[in-house]
Amino acid sequence: MTSEQGDHIIRSYDEELEHLKELIARMGGLAETQLADAVDSLVRNDQELATRTIRNDEKIDEIEHELDAYTVRMLALRQPVASDLRMVISALKVASDLERIGDYAANVAKRAVALHQQQPLDPVRSLPRMAKLVQGNIKRVLDAYAKRDANMALNVWESDQEIDEMYTSLFRETLTYMMEDPRSITAGTHLLFIAKNIERIGDHATNIAEIVYFMATGNQLMIDRPKGDTSSFAVVEPPEEGKGPRKESNNGDEQK
Amino acid sequence: MTSEQGDHIIRSYDEELEHLKELIARMGGLAETQLADAVDSLVRNDQELATRTIRNDEKIDEIEHELDAYTVRMLALRQPVASDLRMVISALKVASDLERIGDYAANVAKRAVALHQQQPLDPVRSLPRMAKLVQGNIKRVLDAYAKRDANMALNVWESDQEIDEMYTSLFRETLTYMMEDPRSITAGTHLLFIAKNIERIGDHATNIAEIVYFMATGNQLMIDRPKGDTSSFAVVEPPEEGKGPRKESNNGDEQK
Repeated sequence: MTSEQGDHIIRSYDEELEHLKELIARMGGLAETQLADAVDSLVRNDQELATRTIRNDEKIDEIEHELDAYTVRMLALRQPVASDLRMVISALKVASDLERIGDYAANVAKRAVALHQQQPLDPVRSLPRMAKLVQGNIKRVLDAYAKRDANMALNVWESDQEIDEMYTSLFRETLTYMMEDPRSITAGTHLLFIAKNIERIGDHATNIAEIVYFMATGNQLMIDRPKGDTSSFAVVEPPEEGKGPRKESNNGDEQK
Repeated sequence: MTSEQGDHIIRSYDEELEHLKELIARMGGLAETQLADAVDSLVRNDQELATRTIRNDEKIDEIEHELDAYTVRMLALRQPVASDLRMVISALKVASDLERIGDYAANVAKRAVALHQQQPLDPVRSLPRMAKLVQGNIKRVLDAYAKRDANMALNVWESDQEIDEMYTSLFRETLTYMMEDPRSITAGTHLLFIAKNIERIGDHATNIAEIVYFMATGNQLMIDRPKGDTSSFAVVEPPEEGKGPRKESNNGDEQK
């Protein structure tokens, strides 16, 4: 029925813990690649790569199912306590974050398909830099996980602020484009969601950092994280009269 | 250090399992209310309610931390197996979905603050209906969780399609508005993200349905869910020449 029943290798307890780490490393590696491929497919307008990236998300989901079943089995048969128990629970949680990262990457690729025949917008150029930062955070947080390194995790956690700030600035820039040229609205909207997806992937790397911190220290990271994403509160004004808006009618609330 | 150490009540094993269910019920109730309040604050432009909703998200996070600690403690001390183990692991996963639902609801409230001084857009009127459906799904999936009812869970899981379809139609409608009047772009963008947040909340209710199904049956729901959200692939064309676009220049790719 479930995949672990086909797993006939008899492992020692330590080997089982090691196997959990391997599953996380595999998922993490895939998630990183998926993000890179999705952004690549978008920037190079590579439809074949975008389609492949959408399809590959399945692999991450499969490993998550495998890891879930493996974890439940370990808990039942090995009944770990203390730091081993924290490690098993952490694997379960990290896997859930990595699965979401995969979902967001696949969504970026879907939008790359939608943007295929649209005129590319300038702000697209900022995406690879933002994505690189996020990929770096995924990589480092997986290292921190493998080494149970609380300081490295804390470092990832703090550096998410820069990603949030990039996102907010890209958000405003894209909105301005959309206001200047209504024909850019469809492409602009997809771009906003793509940027949001990448920013969310960064948040999941931050979640993983919190889990690693807990796993390594036994304590929760309870301080408030500095937030650089203020886009939820953003109001961007349309261009001034004369420079732009097509309709002359004034609804009376533009200056408020 | 952690909150469960202040919990001096000595409980039987059954009482502990019952307590887990209670924590989930409390989190679920809060998540439902947060969504209702967020949408209400938006539709009624009630800034006070929006601010309160943003602040209240903390309560959900606190219960999640409590539940996490409680679960780890139960696993260590009670070492449950079989269906009890599934129940404990499920509580951990459901709590994580409910925490995300809380985040999305808080984000809707943040955007209600941003929209405070913007002219309301017509498609806003579709939001309460969409939110009602999502709330209904949260309520039913929590019932299914409390009763370990796989069929009820399956029912929620299937009905998410209608929410996805509403989202896709709201997405297109809003985009059309934005194209017709550039002054609606800021409000329209927030509206798109609000609708997306509500749709994501629906997805989390679906995740919970999968967890309940697993908890009740021991099997994963492996069939593909029917997907009504095609907005990631959506391309909406701007209004025809003459009716609209300000710039006359033709980039040569509009007809492709």
